[in-house]
Amino acid sequence: MVDSAISSLAPAILPFFGMAVHPMLLVLAISIIGIAVAIYFAKFVLDADKGPAKMQEIAEAIREGAEAFIKRQYTTIAVMALAATVVIYAAYAFFAHDPDMAFKTAFSFLIGAACSAIAGVIGMWIAVRANLRTAAAVDGSMNRAIRLAMRGGAVSGLLIVAMSLMGVSFVYWFLGDNPMETPLKIVGFGFGASFVALFAQVGGGIYTKAADVGADLVGKVEAGIPEDDPRNPAVIADLVGDNVGDCAGRGADLFESTAAENIGAMILGVALFSYFGIAGILFPLVARAFGILASIVGIFSVNAGEHEDPMAALNRGYYVTTVLAAILFYVATGWLLNPVAYPQAHLYFFAAGMVGLALSVAFVYITQYYTESKYRPVQSIAEASKTGPATNIIAGFAVGLENTFAATIAIALALLAAFWLGSNSGVPNGGLYGTAIATMGMLATAAYILAMDTFGPITDNAGGIVEMSGSPKHVREKAEKLDAVGNTTKALTKGYAIGSAALAAFLLFSAYMEEVSKVLVSRGLPAFTVVNLARVEVFVGAMLGAMLVFLFSALCIRAVGKTAQYIIVDVRRQFKNKGIMDGTVKPDYAACVDLTTKGALHEMILPGVVAIAFPILVGFLLKYEAMAAFLMVGTIAGIMMAIVLNNSGGAWDNAKKYIESGVLGGKGSEAHKAAVVGDTVGDPFKDTAGPSLHVLIKMLATITMVLALLFI
Amino acid sequence: MVDSAISSLAPAILPFFGMAVHPMLLVLAISIIGIAVAIYFAKFVLDADKGPAKMQEIAEAIREGAEAFIKRQYTTIAVMALAATVVIYAAYAFFAHDPDMAFKTAFSFLIGAACSAIAGVIGMWIAVRANLRTAAAVDGSMNRAIRLAMRGGAVSGLLIVAMSLMGVSFVYWFLGDNPMETPLKIVGFGFGASFVALFAQVGGGIYTKAADVGADLVGKVEAGIPEDDPRNPAVIADLVGDNVGDCAGRGADLFESTAAENIGAMILGVALFSYFGIAGILFPLVARAFGILASIVGIFSVNAGEHEDPMAALNRGYYVTTVLAAILFYVATGWLLNPVAYPQAHLYFFAAGMVGLALSVAFVYITQYYTESKYRPVQSIAEASKTGPATNIIAGFAVGLENTFAATIAIALALLAAFWLGSNSGVPNGGLYGTAIATMGMLATAAYILAMDTFGPITDNAGGIVEMSGSPKHVREKAEKLDAVGNTTKALTKGYAIGSAALAAFLLFSAYMEEVSKVLVSRGLPAFTVVNLARVEVFVGAMLGAMLVFLFSALCIRAVGKTAQYIIVDVRRQFKNKGIMDGTVKPDYAACVDLTTKGALHEMILPGVVAIAFPILVGFLLKYEAMAAFLMVGTIAGIMMAIVLNNSGGAWDNAKKYIESGVLGGKGSEAHKAAVVGDTVGDPFKDTAGPSLHVLIKMLATITMVLALLFI
Repeated sequence: MVDSAISSLAPAILPFFGMAVHPMLLVLAISIIGIAVAIYFAKFVLDADKGPAKMQEIAEAIREGAEAFIKRQYTTIAVMALAATVVIYAAYAFFAHDPDMAFKTAFSFLIGAACSAIAGVIGMWIAVRANLRTAAAVDGSMNRAIRLAMRGGAVSGLLIVAMSLMGVSFVYWFLGDNPMETPLKIVGFGFGASFVALFAQVGGGIYTKAADVGADLVGKVEAGIPEDDPRNPAVIADLVGDNVGDCAGRGADLFESTAAENIGAMILGVALFSYFGIAGILFPLVARAFGILASIVGIFSVNAGEHEDPMAALNRGYYVTTVLAAILFYVATGWLLNPVAYPQAHLYFFAAGMVGLALSVAFVYITQYYTESKYRPVQSIAEASKTGPATNIIAGFAVGLENTFAATIAIALALLAAFWLGSNSGVPNGGLYGTAIATMGMLATAAYILAMDTFGPITDNAGGIVEMSGSPKHVREKAEKLDAVGNTTKALTKGYAIGSAALAAFLLFSAYMEEVSKVLVSRGLPAFTVVNLARVEVFVGAMLGAMLVFLFSALCIRAVGKTAQYIIVDVRRQFKNKGIMDGTVKPDYAACVDLTTKGALHEMILPGVVAIAFPILVGFLLKYEAMAAFLMVGTIAGIMMAIVLNNSGGAWDNAKKYIESGVLGGKGSEAHKAAVVGDTVGDPFKDTAGPSLHVLIKMLATITMVLALLFI
Repeated sequence: MVDSAISSLAPAILPFFGMAVHPMLLVLAISIIGIAVAIYFAKFVLDADKGPAKMQEIAEAIREGAEAFIKRQYTTIAVMALAATVVIYAAYAFFAHDPDMAFKTAFSFLIGAACSAIAGVIGMWIAVRANLRTAAAVDGSMNRAIRLAMRGGAVSGLLIVAMSLMGVSFVYWFLGDNPMETPLKIVGFGFGASFVALFAQVGGGIYTKAADVGADLVGKVEAGIPEDDPRNPAVIADLVGDNVGDCAGRGADLFESTAAENIGAMILGVALFSYFGIAGILFPLVARAFGILASIVGIFSVNAGEHEDPMAALNRGYYVTTVLAAILFYVATGWLLNPVAYPQAHLYFFAAGMVGLALSVAFVYITQYYTESKYRPVQSIAEASKTGPATNIIAGFAVGLENTFAATIAIALALLAAFWLGSNSGVPNGGLYGTAIATMGMLATAAYILAMDTFGPITDNAGGIVEMSGSPKHVREKAEKLDAVGNTTKALTKGYAIGSAALAAFLLFSAYMEEVSKVLVSRGLPAFTVVNLARVEVFVGAMLGAMLVFLFSALCIRAVGKTAQYIIVDVRRQFKNKGIMDGTVKPDYAACVDLTTKGALHEMILPGVVAIAFPILVGFLLKYEAMAAFLMVGTIAGIMMAIVLNNSGGAWDNAKKYIESGVLGGKGSEAHKAAVVGDTVGDPFKDTAGPSLHVLIKMLATITMVLALLFI
């Protein structure tokens, strides 16, 4: 097998600025650079000052809680993943009578699952260490604190993208007897990654918001003590939640996204093999690798003035990354997408990539408009809070719904433009590949965006540690400023994630159709090119796909409510001990951490199993064309719903903060009380159901690709 | 033209139990019977006792307010409808170069618009009179009160169905030179009806909930006075709202639905002309006419024991109607869908009709489960209210989302079963017609359901009149019991409306495709049979369709918030006069009525125009196949969203009532306060955005049919 793998690589050595370079080796080399830089950043973080003992004690409690949860969560997930491996093997062996394919698919599923788990664990491992160092640095130098948080985030950002590239490359090489068939076999890797990401994100999302809602309802609302007050027994669970939900969950989610999109784009490259040769299959990997280089430079460039808005420094880094990514994208298209027969093609594909990059910038602006307090939407929610919680909720929900308009128009224009550019490249049937290239363009900055994303929970935790360790007021204020930036970056990266999911969706459908076509053609049937909504079972499939999004959101949101109830009961029980409120008795933090862990692990099973089993059942009963409609319309509904949930949640959060800044009566006013209700409602929307929908969408794409032959 | 119309009728005289009967004349005869019974019911209501002067005075204020709003609203709508007529005429004359077609379509648009307006106005006219008589009857005889409210509702129920049949028959006869083309020309009638229904429902929906929210927030929450307290200046506006939103709006909505579905089914009948002849085209009208007969008997059979649950009496009437409708459906299929070549066909089509009837019963049960306080969902919301408004909102929203599961599975099974039955009838391509027949089956009981629907606002108003007129406690309690039944019937009929919209959707898409095919074939192009979601512009169309649903919901919900603000400001201004709270000064009810009218008329324009202009723009730019996906996926998203909005709203309402019944601390407890917040959030969901989405879905279907040639 190794021999044939090497022979498959042979035709792929291509001249690059006059040198003979194998794209795959270049990808591996850059991946290794990415990992080396991640290790350097990790060392930078770990070497930093850990601050006073009081801070270390709190951070230790957070770290212990987070690691205990992750250990138990991944044990549960591992058992389920092994069961799924057996099912996949059996399905292939039974339905395709192809033990070789069965073994390969099951094997790449396991590798994908393992990589996804590792990505999640490492992201959290560094975050529960970076939080303390950031907290300790805040007093001395704001710039140093920002750099610590950003580089802590960059560890997982770089590792995720690099590992996803190496994982796909390894499986490609391992399975690679025929470069035209290999991408179709790697789908197991993507599904493995999705499988783990689904449970990690759902479980982590339930944990984080159950702890948050539970802590807030009893602490802030009933007992009237501030957020992150050390007297609140649920406060450590709340801080643990930021790590297990936002770091581990999001890490697994984004590992899966990058893997799925790489694989999907490679499958489309196979379809254009006669024009681009192997270069078209490997282009997605090279484009992503170049994106790592751009992101590394961008992350190094983050440097804030001591009195500057930290967001400005992060934005500068983002623009550096974007410009570099654009230049490298030009190099990559010129190198690999430049067939002699179509001399203008690389320019069109470069333009398609820029469409993707432009969409990512557009999403950043749209998300800011709908979730930042300087614009009309958040201000309208704050204004509506004057007449109580009901009008606050109505206004916030309307803002979330309205947000779909600008976002959908942006996605629609990007899809049409990328398709048009691909079609006009001269390459026959190049339109679809144009949309794949646009996705690659959008994802070029992924490592930087991921670093910004993990920046959020790190600064959030740092703020909590500063608060709980009884630091002086001016330090708390600086930490709060940093925390506020973290909230913004979290909202932006969620916008980015959903935008890229939308753009990638079309690519992933097409990959599924290629996958099905391959099986059909091998049986002497015509290829699968039409998903006809006018057929009754296809229409029913579409309807069921949309419904799954609604049902899954319901299950996620309800799980948070159920788990929060346990915590509320326990915190109330602990508050009966008067010593806790006096500050003379230390509350039992571990009890809350343990209850939340048990609750979240128990409650993640139902949404996870429904998300996996329902599509398989529908596909099995209604067959592949209906399944395509299920996937497509489910994705559309998922995108809309995720936008509503993420951004109404973000807008409620910021409406509350806006009032806290002193307008409309400020903290403690009736408007503020109403805004706190809105913020609490938004919690499971934006941090449990919304992000879990991102994973659901991508998991649907990989599950359909892996199990395509069950649906034929 | 008359000659040719008559000649087109000639072949349609068919033997019916040995007699030569023209189906069209039978339909007309039954329609006239329906109208006669409606007049009898109206007389029954008007002759009833109007009660004490105090009640009459209040009812007079409601009547004046409602009539003033309707007058101004329909003036605005008339201007817009005339403008739309010109646009339609110009579009046909310019794009199709067919002045005859342009005239006929514009003409049937105007007739449809006028009929829809009349249906709305009459429904409201009788409701604002039946409310007083029902209020006056409550003290003497509960049974008489129920019969008055039900017969008041039946006036509009029967008139709507009968007028829709007569309208379609008239236009069919007037345009009828070729029975195979006529149904394609009647679509203008459906669009006219939709056009008026859209603005009537949106405007009425905004009015009713802005007044409700405004009255509640200042009266109940700020001033602490009970609902329907005469000291609240917005109380009359609130009662007016029940009439203009639930009667006039719903009346126009359901007139449009019955018209659109009749026309769609007739168009599908055209496609099967070679098997059924004209009988297949006329079957939908005959089935509906038979449904009127069944409903009349059902309405007459409503008779409650003095101490019986009024809901039991209404349910008995519903079962009588259902059984009779099934028997008559058997007669109709045996008569008209019984071609010699396929002797078993009528049995299969009868079974398809029963699938529709079963779906309507299933929807009644599903809606009850999710919105009644004896089941888990509402109880879980009440339970969550113990920890405040935030958990109440989270629980209620989750219930609404979860509701989509059972509803979608029911729709999916019904569609597949009806299609399977149609396909197995032996008639070639009979599957699609099977779904049309199922829709007819579901709609057979429409007149009865409509009567139950208008029963709601009549009893709601009666409750308000009893409360405000200072009746003794035992009368108020009886009126409240009646009002509670009205709330249940309103929720059930909304479930029925969305279920029938879902079932009809497939029929209406297919009619649109027939419509487009006709134009394509006339130009020598192949027929339109495939809506391929795998094409990029079709996928974009699908995405935009789903987005419109979210955007439109946002605009409707926001409009309620904006209009409510006016009322809140005015009520607060009036409350500054101490005399009002003492009861010594009568508040200025008219000021609130006037403000709500102005606000609702102003705010209905944006959602209405967006709903009409956006699909036209998309169809014009992306063409007919993308437009089909827009329509289909927009419909799917609309069904899901309407289920969520209607039923979360209903569940919140009943969770509040459940707590008021004494559980969890009862009225005035913290749980109750939280539940009041949920109820207020649900108001614009269930009574503005939800019902407006029903109209949007059907309007999309008619607008695409009428403007199909712009999209080619």
